[in-house]
Amino acid sequence: MQGVDPAWLPDEAFRPIGTRRTLIRGSGPLVDTVHGEVAQACARFGGSVSRDGSPGPYDLVLELTGAESGDGGEAFTVERGDGRTTVTASGGSGLLYGLFHVVRLGETAFQDSYGPEEHRPESALRMLDHWDNVAVHPVMGQVERGYAGGSLFWADGRARGELLGRVRAYGRLLAACGINAVAVNNVNVHATEAHLLTDRIGEVAAIAGALRPYGIRTHLSVTFAAPMVLGGLPTADPLDEAVRGWWAEATARVYEAIPDFGGYVVKADSEGRPGPFAYGRSHADGANMLAAALTASDSGSAAGYGGTVHWRAFVYNHRQDWRDRTTDRARAAYDHFVPLDGQFAANAVLQVKHGPMDFQVREPVSPLIGAMPRTRLAVELQATQEYTGQQRHVCWLGPMWSEVLRFRPEEGSSVGELARGGLVAVSNIGDDPFWTGHPLAQANLYTFGRLAWQPDADPGGILDEWIRLSFGPGDTRLHAIMDGSWRTYEKYTAPLGVGWMVQPGHHYGPSLDGYEYSPWGTYHFADRDGVGVDRSCATGTGYAGQYPKPWAELYESPETCPDELLLFFHHVSYGHMLRSGKTVIQHIYDTHFEGVEEVEEARRVWAELEGLVDPARHARVTERFEEQLRTAREWRDQVNSYFFRKSGVADAHGRRIY
Amino acid sequence: MQGVDPAWLPDEAFRPIGTRRTLIRGSGPLVDTVHGEVAQACARFGGSVSRDGSPGPYDLVLELTGAESGDGGEAFTVERGDGRTTVTASGGSGLLYGLFHVVRLGETAFQDSYGPEEHRPESALRMLDHWDNVAVHPVMGQVERGYAGGSLFWADGRARGELLGRVRAYGRLLAACGINAVAVNNVNVHATEAHLLTDRIGEVAAIAGALRPYGIRTHLSVTFAAPMVLGGLPTADPLDEAVRGWWAEATARVYEAIPDFGGYVVKADSEGRPGPFAYGRSHADGANMLAAALTASDSGSAAGYGGTVHWRAFVYNHRQDWRDRTTDRARAAYDHFVPLDGQFAANAVLQVKHGPMDFQVREPVSPLIGAMPRTRLAVELQATQEYTGQQRHVCWLGPMWSEVLRFRPEEGSSVGELARGGLVAVSNIGDDPFWTGHPLAQANLYTFGRLAWQPDADPGGILDEWIRLSFGPGDTRLHAIMDGSWRTYEKYTAPLGVGWMVQPGHHYGPSLDGYEYSPWGTYHFADRDGVGVDRSCATGTGYAGQYPKPWAELYESPETCPDELLLFFHHVSYGHMLRSGKTVIQHIYDTHFEGVEEVEEARRVWAELEGLVDPARHARVTERFEEQLRTAREWRDQVNSYFFRKSGVADAHGRRIY
Repeated sequence: MQGVDPAWLPDEAFRPIGTRRTLIRGSGPLVDTVHGEVAQACARFGGSVSRDGSPGPYDLVLELTGAESGDGGEAFTVERGDGRTTVTASGGSGLLYGLFHVVRLGETAFQDSYGPEEHRPESALRMLDHWDNVAVHPVMGQVERGYAGGSLFWADGRARGELLGRVRAYGRLLAACGINAVAVNNVNVHATEAHLLTDRIGEVAAIAGALRPYGIRTHLSVTFAAPMVLGGLPTADPLDEAVRGWWAEATARVYEAIPDFGGYVVKADSEGRPGPFAYGRSHADGANMLAAALTASDSGSAAGYGGTVHWRAFVYNHRQDWRDRTTDRARAAYDHFVPLDGQFAANAVLQVKHGPMDFQVREPVSPLIGAMPRTRLAVELQATQEYTGQQRHVCWLGPMWSEVLRFRPEEGSSVGELARGGLVAVSNIGDDPFWTGHPLAQANLYTFGRLAWQPDADPGGILDEWIRLSFGPGDTRLHAIMDGSWRTYEKYTAPLGVGWMVQPGHHYGPSLDGYEYSPWGTYHFADRDGVGVDRSCATGTGYAGQYPKPWAELYESPETCPDELLLFFHHVSYGHMLRSGKTVIQHIYDTHFEGVEEVEEARRVWAELEGLVDPARHARVTERFEEQLRTAREWRDQVNSYFFRKSGVADAHGRRIY
Repeated sequence: MQGVDPAWLPDEAFRPIGTRRTLIRGSGPLVDTVHGEVAQACARFGGSVSRDGSPGPYDLVLELTGAESGDGGEAFTVERGDGRTTVTASGGSGLLYGLFHVVRLGETAFQDSYGPEEHRPESALRMLDHWDNVAVHPVMGQVERGYAGGSLFWADGRARGELLGRVRAYGRLLAACGINAVAVNNVNVHATEAHLLTDRIGEVAAIAGALRPYGIRTHLSVTFAAPMVLGGLPTADPLDEAVRGWWAEATARVYEAIPDFGGYVVKADSEGRPGPFAYGRSHADGANMLAAALTASDSGSAAGYGGTVHWRAFVYNHRQDWRDRTTDRARAAYDHFVPLDGQFAANAVLQVKHGPMDFQVREPVSPLIGAMPRTRLAVELQATQEYTGQQRHVCWLGPMWSEVLRFRPEEGSSVGELARGGLVAVSNIGDDPFWTGHPLAQANLYTFGRLAWQPDADPGGILDEWIRLSFGPGDTRLHAIMDGSWRTYEKYTAPLGVGWMVQPGHHYGPSLDGYEYSPWGTYHFADRDGVGVDRSCATGTGYAGQYPKPWAELYESPETCPDELLLFFHHVSYGHMLRSGKTVIQHIYDTHFEGVEEVEEARRVWAELEGLVDPARHARVTERFEEQLRTAREWRDQVNSYFFRKSGVADAHGRRIY
């Protein structure tokens, strides 16, 4: 990968293995991948690797204990004794994950005795959704909400066969943080992209071929209208036999091309996409039809194809009248889907955004999670920084995601545990030489993979892991820059959970009333007296009541609602006293001044790292900090001026508000 | 023109001529056009036309009294005596205008005795600027600010040779309202369009050939950077000899292709366009260089080529910091250009937008007009309804333009008289079958032409003329719909001259803070206490002082400033009492409710006209009224809610504000 940033797999990370003697036992394609990785490291650093059991001694043994199977077998055990580190796994992917575990440990893997420790992913599906278009969309471009150059897979309507090597390298990075599934096209399936399902499935198969050596299964976003658009049928009614037959046949041909195909991702009846509502059918009807097609198998094997349909729960009225305060977009997913609990097929996964709105910098956890015990849910996060600085701002999302995943809707289970259908993130990757536009945004991808594997992991530890792999050991200053960056971003943008004060359309930079009179259901209702959305049961939209206890009670009252979500749940006066002891208006002023100061400080610290960091990477981040600071100041001044003009309340510290 | 609306030249308008006997005297191409028009009418209605002086009697004599010359000769005389109507002119274009005058008069032309009356245009240049792009611009599309379909001239990078017949018909419509010049491409000259000047001049010549039979000269927008972009020179410095030589040579080749070429239109140092500032030269230096190229002639004739450069005065800082209240975009044209008075060549025309900002529904007249007595100024109006409803709303601009043209900066001369360099309008025409998208928007084009000919004409009379020609005689209801439509539009949009409460970018529909924190220099400064821009000399930006007396004094004080411009000149409290006797806030509420009611009434009246109006035209207008009403209500509710939320003042009449 000439000129491409090595991200968290620089050659140097393989030195501890590459200088030692390794034995690999077992066979199969993923074991071949493991062997290739070790052999490459040894070629570089002078160690040795054997697959034939030639006489030892060995420093590292990587051993497949069972027959490699296509699915599962992701767990591995690692231990050290008698001067030898041993990784065992019952599946090839487990052995691969074990290898990358050793890489992460570095020299530590070969020190002292320990173990055996078993490592097993919390969820079987750890997935990236690419919102990549095949053809350039006139509004959304090549990659919808993409901030990292073009697509790795598609350009101007064609597949980028010339980048398959880079797709393979991408798969390697993903495996090294635990991701095992990729959906290769946008959930908004436009006319060109629809054809990936049928006559262009070969292009998907080529990508699948590049990802397969790293244990990654390929998924495809499809349009619910495919039987009409592609099949020429007069309907897409999910209960129509011809429609069901069409999907079964199309799916059979997909599996001919991609035997380990992962399944479909569907955005239906959402923001203008077609769906089952048009035929008076439920979303369970729609999802189950596809689930059936993904289960059937001509081969007659018991498991069938083993495919999954990921059905997105992002269904709401995007043509709302802003005058209508009785409709609350935040309620929509719960209202639509809870009545369907228990109706979804076993291989239908309902994919739920982590918050009730749309990836704002701060939202409560969606009340849908935990409310559908008889449905497999996947939780969708957004690695691409649509609302969090678009990879021009440092905004490491680990703490936010960790808060979400540790949240316990009720006593008993956390979100991470409830996400039995998997964890999904919208990818932040493109053909940018640094993969993610902002080099530090790589940390979001890495952190997502590691949290998907272990949702209760300490995000700070993951950050350190990523820093150590990517930048080498030593300096704590990068940790300082990144650890608080999400809260810094929150400070200088929309306050107290109210969200949506962004430029409409592209969502970058402030526009305080940009969505205030729009049809998108995204309002803050600021007036001269106060701001916020009353979602209480007593006087508001009743959204707070979608939560079980204790959350419903906590959110119901402005006295007990957490400060950071206050304006999401309540409309309060500017003089309202926060639990922090500050008034709302003074909190707004203070956080906005602080946020900019924190960016200034981060930029200063980054400048100190010059010489310690690869110059190209340093230069790119430096340039992004300039833009972040410019925009953070713009946010500060617009937000402060907006609320000062509305409230007339002067800043207690007399700072400059325009 | 199969399927194309006949606009103000339906066949029926020629009946009074076509049923009579006409004699045409004189020769030349425009006389041939006159003959063709009359002959066609006679063929349709049974009359006769003679050019050879065969024995009469004649009802109409059209007589060229001099030798036709290319320029001038636009005046004509009309009289009636002895049962014969006679039009005489010294030039072919005068005879053509005389013919269309007779068409406008209809049967009246042939009744009683009258005259002789002499008709002579106030200004020698009555021009339409097309903001048509050759290639589709990624943001602005085929026609920048075009609301009438595609371009008549260009599509997807190529010339629309197949539409030359329609271009000729367009020229005929223009001649019938007095327009004599057309610039065929956008003042924002992008990469493709630059080539019209050189290797693609043949495409311009083809358009010129289609317009020439109706006395219309063709002009071209050029980029100031042409010597670099097209000529490969290292500079575009207007004082550089190589640059001057390049322009001279390029211009000579233009005149080889188009002997009656009108000249160049230039937008320089404006909104990112290149210009003389880059070389430390003045705009007079820039304009005069092009003026020199347009004057020189290889033919050695005394007049030279006779070309004109139209140099736009739309120069301002479009990267302003909204925090900076000392910079006032309204001041910019005056500040930039007044120091250059007297420095422009005789064939350089400074083209000034009628207001200091950019075609808002209400602006004061630009103080630049009247402030440059030694410079030929052209006044630019905007027929395309960028900020006035985008041809989805009825907004007949005749009264606004008439107010501008009758405005007297000082005792003595009106704007119409001061516009010695001509009157220019940005075209509202496209390849739409109704020419202008909204069929009633045709009236703006017609009215512009007639006002350009006679700036002090009564606009209501022009409207009646247009209605009579386009719809036939009789009904006064259409007049009622259109006559007040500009004031209606003003009522439901931004109040009291403050402007700019539109959606950024496309400029359609309300966004009250859309431009409030932007770099465009377009603010209203609304806060909880009041709204408006202080442009007084005493406490504001000093813009009011750019006017001579009595205007400077009148605008300086909120007590004497006209209500409709109050917020343009002053920041006042919501309780400020207008000269009308209402407070500002109550005025806002009242006008917004009234504006919507007026649209409802206009729609109701239009519905009554069904059966009296061509069905296709009626249907199109009906559909547009639905959209106008929808958007007018959106304007009403957003503006009222915005100011209610800011001010907290309840509507005196208790109407619904959200």
